[in-house]
Amino acid sequence: MFRNQYDTDVTTWSPAGRLFQVEYAMEAVKQGSAAVGLTSKTHAVLVSVGKTNSEFSSYQKKIFKVDDHIGVAIAGLTADGRVLSLHMRSECIHYKFLYDSPLPVGRLVVQLADKAQVCTQRSWTRPYGVGLLVAGLDETGPHLYLNCPSGNYFEYQAYAIGARSQAAKTYLERKFETFPECSRDELIRHGVISVREALAEGKLNGSNCSVAVVGAGEAFSILDPKMVQQIIDSLDDKNEEPPADVAPVEGEQGAVQDDTDQGVAPMET
Amino acid sequence: MFRNQYDTDVTTWSPAGRLFQVEYAMEAVKQGSAAVGLTSKTHAVLVSVGKTNSEFSSYQKKIFKVDDHIGVAIAGLTADGRVLSLHMRSECIHYKFLYDSPLPVGRLVVQLADKAQVCTQRSWTRPYGVGLLVAGLDETGPHLYLNCPSGNYFEYQAYAIGARSQAAKTYLERKFETFPECSRDELIRHGVISVREALAEGKLNGSNCSVAVVGAGEAFSILDPKMVQQIIDSLDDKNEEPPADVAPVEGEQGAVQDDTDQGVAPMET
Amino acid sequence: MFRNQYDTDVTTWSPAGRLFQVEYAMEAVKQGSAAVGLTSKTHAVLVSVGKTNSEFSSYQKKIFKVDDHIGVAIAGLTADGRVLSLHMRSECIHYKFLYDSPLPVGRLVVQLADKAQVCTQRSWTRPYGVGLLVAGLDETGPHLYLNCPSGNYFEYQAYAIGARSQAAKTYLERKFETFPECSRDELIRHGVISVREALAEGKLNGSNCSVAVVGAGEAFSILDPKMVQQIIDSLDDKNEEPPADVAPVEGEQGAVQDDTDQGVAPMET
Amino acid sequence: MFRNQYDTDVTTWSPAGRLFQVEYAMEAVKQGSAAVGLTSKTHAVLVSVGKTNSEFSSYQKKIFKVDDHIGVAIAGLTADGRVLSLHMRSECIHYKFLYDSPLPVGRLVVQLADKAQVCTQRSWTRPYGVGLLVAGLDETGPHLYLNCPSGNYFEYQAYAIGARSQAAKTYLERKFETFPECSRDELIRHGVISVREALAEGKLNGSNCSVAVVGAGEAFSILDPKMVQQIIDSLDDKNEEPPADVAPVEGEQGAVQDDTDQGVAPMET
Amino acid sequence: MFRNQYDTDVTTWSPAGRLFQVEYAMEAVKQGSAAVGLTSKTHAVLVSVGKTNSEFSSYQKKIFKVDDHIGVAIAGLTADGRVLSLHMRSECIHYKFLYDSPLPVGRLVVQLADKAQVCTQRSWTRPYGVGLLVAGLDETGPHLYLNCPSGNYFEYQAYAIGARSQAAKTYLERKFETFPECSRDELIRHGVISVREALAEGKLNGSNCSVAVVGAGEAFSILDPKMVQQIIDSLDDKNEEPPADVAPVEGEQGAVQDDTDQGVAPMET
Amino acid sequence: MFRNQYDTDVTTWSPAGRLFQVEYAMEAVKQGSAAVGLTSKTHAVLVSVGKTNSEFSSYQKKIFKVDDHIGVAIAGLTADGRVLSLHMRSECIHYKFLYDSPLPVGRLVVQLADKAQVCTQRSWTRPYGVGLLVAGLDETGPHLYLNCPSGNYFEYQAYAIGARSQAAKTYLERKFETFPECSRDELIRHGVISVREALAEGKLNGSNCSVAVVGAGEAFSILDPKMVQQIIDSLDDKNEEPPADVAPVEGEQGAVQDDTDQGVAPMET
Amino acid sequence: MFRNQYDTDVTTWSPAGRLFQVEYAMEAVKQGSAAVGLTSKTHAVLVSVGKTNSEFSSYQKKIFKVDDHIGVAIAGLTADGRVLSLHMRSECIHYKFLYDSPLPVGRLVVQLADKAQVCTQRSWTRPYGVGLLVAGLDETGPHLYLNCPSGNYFEYQAYAIGARSQAAKTYLERKFETFPECSRDELIRHGVISVREALAEGKLNGSNCSVAVVGAGEAFSILDPKMVQQIIDSLDDKNEEPPADVAPVEGEQGAVQDDTDQGVAPMET
Repeated sequence: MFRNQYDTDVTTWSPAGRLFQVEYAMEAVKQGSAAVGLTSKTHAVLVSVGKTNSEFSSYQKKIFKVDDHIGVAIAGLTADGRVLSLHMRSECIHYKFLYDSPLPVGRLVVQLADKAQVCTQRSWTRPYGVGLLVAGLDETGPHLYLNCPSGNYFEYQAYAIGARSQAAKTYLERKFETFPECSRDELIRHGVISVREALAEGKLNGSNCSVAVVGAGEAFSILDPKMVQQIIDSLDDKNEEPPADVAPVEGEQGAVQDDTDQGVAPMET
Repeated sequence: MFRNQYDTDVTTWSPAGRLFQVEYAMEAVKQGSAAVGLTSKTHAVLVSVGKTNSEFSSYQKKIFKVDDHIGVAIAGLTADGRVLSLHMRSECIHYKFLYDSPLPVGRLVVQLADKAQVCTQRSWTRPYGVGLLVAGLDETGPHLYLNCPSGNYFEYQAYAIGARSQAAKTYLERKFETFPECSRDELIRHGVISVREALAEGKLNGSNCSVAVVGAGEAFSILDPKMVQQIIDSLDDKNEEPPADVAPVEGEQGAVQDDTDQGVAPMET
Repeated sequence: MFRNQYDTDVTTWSPAGRLFQVEYAMEAVKQGSAAVGLTSKTHAVLVSVGKTNSEFSSYQKKIFKVDDHIGVAIAGLTADGRVLSLHMRSECIHYKFLYDSPLPVGRLVVQLADKAQVCTQRSWTRPYGVGLLVAGLDETGPHLYLNCPSGNYFEYQAYAIGARSQAAKTYLERKFETFPECSRDELIRHGVISVREALAEGKLNGSNCSVAVVGAGEAFSILDPKMVQQIIDSLDDKNEEPPADVAPVEGEQGAVQDDTDQGVAPMET
Repeated sequence: MFRNQYDTDVTTWSPAGRLFQVEYAMEAVKQGSAAVGLTSKTHAVLVSVGKTNSEFSSYQKKIFKVDDHIGVAIAGLTADGRVLSLHMRSECIHYKFLYDSPLPVGRLVVQLADKAQVCTQRSWTRPYGVGLLVAGLDETGPHLYLNCPSGNYFEYQAYAIGARSQAAKTYLERKFETFPECSRDELIRHGVISVREALAEGKLNGSNCSVAVVGAGEAFSILDPKMVQQIIDSLDDKNEEPPADVAPVEGEQGAVQDDTDQGVAPMET
Repeated sequence: MFRNQYDTDVTTWSPAGRLFQVEYAMEAVKQGSAAVGLTSKTHAVLVSVGKTNSEFSSYQKKIFKVDDHIGVAIAGLTADGRVLSLHMRSECIHYKFLYDSPLPVGRLVVQLADKAQVCTQRSWTRPYGVGLLVAGLDETGPHLYLNCPSGNYFEYQAYAIGARSQAAKTYLERKFETFPECSRDELIRHGVISVREALAEGKLNGSNCSVAVVGAGEAFSILDPKMVQQIIDSLDDKNEEPPADVAPVEGEQGAVQDDTDQGVAPMET
Repeated sequence: MFRNQYDTDVTTWSPAGRLFQVEYAMEAVKQGSAAVGLTSKTHAVLVSVGKTNSEFSSYQKKIFKVDDHIGVAIAGLTADGRVLSLHMRSECIHYKFLYDSPLPVGRLVVQLADKAQVCTQRSWTRPYGVGLLVAGLDETGPHLYLNCPSGNYFEYQAYAIGARSQAAKTYLERKFETFPECSRDELIRHGVISVREALAEGKLNGSNCSVAVVGAGEAFSILDPKMVQQIIDSLDDKNEEPPADVAPVEGEQGAVQDDTDQGVAPMET
Repeated sequence: MFRNQYDTDVTTWSPAGRLFQVEYAMEAVKQGSAAVGLTSKTHAVLVSVGKTNSEFSSYQKKIFKVDDHIGVAIAGLTADGRVLSLHMRSECIHYKFLYDSPLPVGRLVVQLADKAQVCTQRSWTRPYGVGLLVAGLDETGPHLYLNCPSGNYFEYQAYAIGARSQAAKTYLERKFETFPECSRDELIRHGVISVREALAEGKLNGSNCSVAVVGAGEAFSILDPKMVQQIIDSLDDKNEEPPADVAPVEGEQGAVQDDTDQGVAPMET
């Protein structure tokens, strides 16, 4: 009942030191369709599941190329994600123009986070309702970051966000130690399998699954749907099913489960 | 009852991570008169039903020409639609002046979506209350997009929005696979039939039905009412009636039906 | 009871996708004194009834000349109407200065509608509380438009707005098919008769009734009260009384009657 | 009880299409001390009753000279009236500087009304709480206008505003037809008598009664109190008392009486 | 109970046409310590009682010199009064610089009133909480004005404002007719006596009583405390005590007493 | 219960003419740790008690040097006090640059007060929550001023503000008459003793007690803690204990005690 | 219950002179993971515990390098902390550019505090939700400051903030007197031990514990995780366990415990 009072303005603190509006925006991330990112020593891979509105529509884009060395996968409000990736794109162009070298991934991530933070401290706006997995390659190798509506960001070796992402994370955790030495194709394969775990219904195919990769000697690119279909088809090793004890999480948001579910980190860690 | 608290400001998140004001604006789209878009390999067609206020008024325009290669059909608040199509027009002129080539359809759609997104993140404004079916032709062929109040957009091969659009979509779904190879006139015919399905009462005629087409070697144009009447008259093949099992959807908004009804996609997909 | 929550801010959508403040502003139009517009192939005529505050006051102007080829009749808040007609005047002057030709009627109507739309999407203002019947002549002949507080506009051959306008519309509907071929004087006569139908009490005379005409070879002008009196006097053909079955509508606004009563069109059609 | 919801913001429409804040501002006019204006063919006269705060204070000025050919009498908030008359003064100076001729009365009245209208459509301000009787002379002869808080204005031959103005209006109505041919002094006399009717208590004298006149060959001037006293003294023809059946209206505002009482016209007429 | 709704925003009218926030600001004036002003044919005198916070503090200044020919005595919020007198000072300097002559008293008073009016019509500010007695000398002789929070001003021959000012006014009323012919010293004497009437407790002395005078051949100056003490000492004619029937008014504000008590005039007179 | 309505906005007057938000800000002053100021004919001294957060923290600074001739001691919100003293510093520098002489103390105090007044009349800010004792020396000798959140200021010979300041004031009152002739060291000694009276618990020492002095031939300086310790050590004349009948005031704010307690003067005096 | 009224706007004072929104923001600091700072005569050390979101994520950075001579450890909202440290960085660069010398630590701390104070006095923003321990070295030796959301700052010899920081402070208090003479490595060791006390669960290791040091001849640097691990490993002297009588404080915020717990000082001291 205290909620009523402190959770309608983004600039209002609750007595317990929480910003409810920021937390609610993170709920939007938890309900987006799942996206997974993972890195080896040489590559970074993004995989996302798309929803579609009808039979004859295309699947909505959930992975955006930002620059030759950077791309993002989003979960949450697509329009917010698009606006933010547009911002990232112009930051990259600007930097390249000034310094004639690609914008380091970490710096872009910080700029993105600062833009998000501002929306948590002005009364006339709202926090962005989108989580972004930023995959990039720079002089220090491949990187994977998560940017949250709170203005926080985290570096991960592998991570999954969005609806039912806990299932994907469970898979990632089991395989996680093998990733650094994975080849490009093995890494993609792991990404596709993990995202399959997060699929609530239907079947993964070249249309509803997007895969993007960036790596040593390879600019960020979104794979052709056909190639994605081939990868999916090759996954007959059905011995990697989701463990039966992982209950579907969709529809339980806000319940007792751990806050780190579905890829949204708390505002403070 | 939670609604009361989180649904009056566009910048307020609900505890479940929803922006109610954006969702309410989408209701306005669902209640607009129906509009249909469909594409073949060579053409894109828009068809809309107009309401009229009285016997002696003209039917209100629901299809606008934006440029020689682009046009829109709207459902929802007409004034919002007009203002947005005006914006599109000036974007096209500006681009043509700068680059001496027509603005690619996809780019225009993104700019339009960005303009809509801004209205979902500023406290002093409201989301647009209109859905736009954008039909255009560029180097990559004909395209059909849907722009939503949320700032989302989707590409479709065929789609219908507005009141009773579910009936039109049902028709489109049945015929859908034949569209790519359709001739210009067959495509128009399919569009008119599908829009007829969405007609709640009265009879389709050259006045209340608008048809526009753009295609290879043919600039975007709105057909003459007489020509529309001829097309309608030629539809004696009454064997394509709406399947009896499709109940009229008007008046049931907000009920249990699927959210993808009436052409408004959810904010996240 | 839902009204309470969503109807005090112009930028707040109701759950059903309505903008109540815009609808309330349209109520102001319905309560203004009646105005009628009608067009033949050669002329456009505006007729309005004025109220007066006291015996020794002039009747308030409800018809404004905008330019030599355009004029408006208003119903609703007179001050809002005056401010808008002033805006129209300066648009005409500006256009004439730039292009050395009169501003086409349809363009002016769109500019006016855009100005009204803005007032429905900014939190610090309110929708205009006035409906405008715009009568004008341009290269395509005489035109009659209705501009609404919602930012919508409609072209009509004949229309009536304001209090008790349903009675006037009933007359117009009966005579409507003869208008195109009417002479200037017959058209005026029809306009005056129809406005008389909308008169709740008192008697039409040269003071409380304003008549304006624009047509081929005739600039927009407001007729001299004496001339208006003569026209009224000549109407002894009392066989055109209001059909007894048309109940007075004043005082019933908001009741079950059709929304198209009293000249205010819904926001979407 | 509906009032509670729609009557605290000037930019909020009531469901019935009313702007309550504007109507409330008009109440302030009805409670100001009475002012009367009247015109003959050659002169315009303003007469007002002043209240005073104490024995040794001057009576507050209720009549302001604007220019040589224009003056105003106010009823309502004196400070608002002063600020508006200051604005009128600078409009006159500006016009004279540009065109080297006096600003026509009607134009000034429209500018004043536009300034008032703006205050009814911006959320950060309030409608002016003053009614102004503008008396002026220009090429078309003497004029009398009433400017209302709503942004409306009306031309009158004679009118009275403020507390108990109904009594003054009753007198004016009786004598009204003789005014056009009145001499300057007769017109003043009629004005003084009518204002005396509106006096609740006390006795009219040279201090509490202000008289101003403008006319052919006579610049706008406020008469000397002594002269006013002389005029009052000469009114021994006490046969023109207020008719006994006119009850004092003060204290009954908001009751059933006609809205045109006390000089405030409705927003729409 | 209606109060609750209309009395928290300065830009909100009550249904009865009142601006409660302005009226509440006037309450602050009524509670300030008393100040008295009075004029003869040659001089204007201001007298005020100061409160002090503690034994070892100076008495707070309640009389400010504005220019050589103008000064003010304030009652109400001292900080507001100081800011306003600072504004007056800069207006005087500016005028003198431009025209090389002193700013006429009446003009300054109007500028001050306009500044106060603005604060009654903007939502982001509040009315000033101070009343100012302005005493000045110009070509037309000595003047005394009262400026109110409402933006109103009044000219007086003698007046008293602040707590218990009714007692002072009673004295002034009794002696009032003799003032015009008073000598400078007699006028000061009358002022000091009248302010003594308003003293609730304690005894008037050179520290808690300020006296200022401006007159023919004498610039505005605040008398030396010693001189004030001498004047007080010379008042042994204790026959001029406050009439026993004047009850102390402090603590009864808002009660039934006449609104003109304590020097605050109503907004409209 | 009336409080609820009028005490959340700084620009809202209560019906009794009070600004509650300003009064609440003054409460913050009353709860700050005590500060004392006192002047002789040649010197001005400031003494304050600091609180500390923990054993190993320094005591927070409560006395700031503004310029060579001016310093302040604060009680209330330390951050507000620091920001204001920074403002004072820049005013002094600016003045010295322009006029090549030190800014007179009284002028600085007025500028400070004006800055505070503005915060009581703008809806988007809040009154400062700090009281400042300003000690300075200029051509007219040493001065001590108190600046309040209300924008008021007072000159004192000696004063104490903050929690339990009543005890300090009681001491000052007893010794008060001897101050003018005190030597620099005696004055400091009196200041330290009086501040010791206001100490609720613990013992005064060189760390928790700050002493600053400015005087003839001596720039404003904060004494070395060791020197302060020596002074405290020398105070073995324990016969100057707080009179037993002065109850501790902490925790009773808002109760019945006199408003002048703890150094905050009412808004009007 | 009074809380409800005064604690949602940062610019609203409570009747007791408190700014609740500022206090609530301080709660966010108390719930951040613990950070410790301590200084010897030659060095300043910062130690923080990081939380992590998942097995395969990096620990989030809680210590930031600002310049060669300054760094910060944060507790509370990470995004707010990052934005503030970015601000500090640009202040340092700017100063170095202007004066060619490093910005003194104390000056930076004041600028930071001023930036925080502004956010407590503007209605459209919120106080920062982060506490910063600023460690730096300048000509006057090593320094440790705490900056609070209130705009306050404090200098400490050693301090701990964040969740369970009371345990760390207890350790610091016991060892505190030995710090000044500690060697660099001993100081780090004390810091690591004290932070271990604040660890609620799990075990300190090179990943979840960050250590930074700045000192004579040593620029601010964050130690390599391996080195941190070595230090932790070397701590087998488990005789320095947290005293059993220190109960875990997490979850009890807002309870009866002393306000100085968890490193947030009151707004006034």
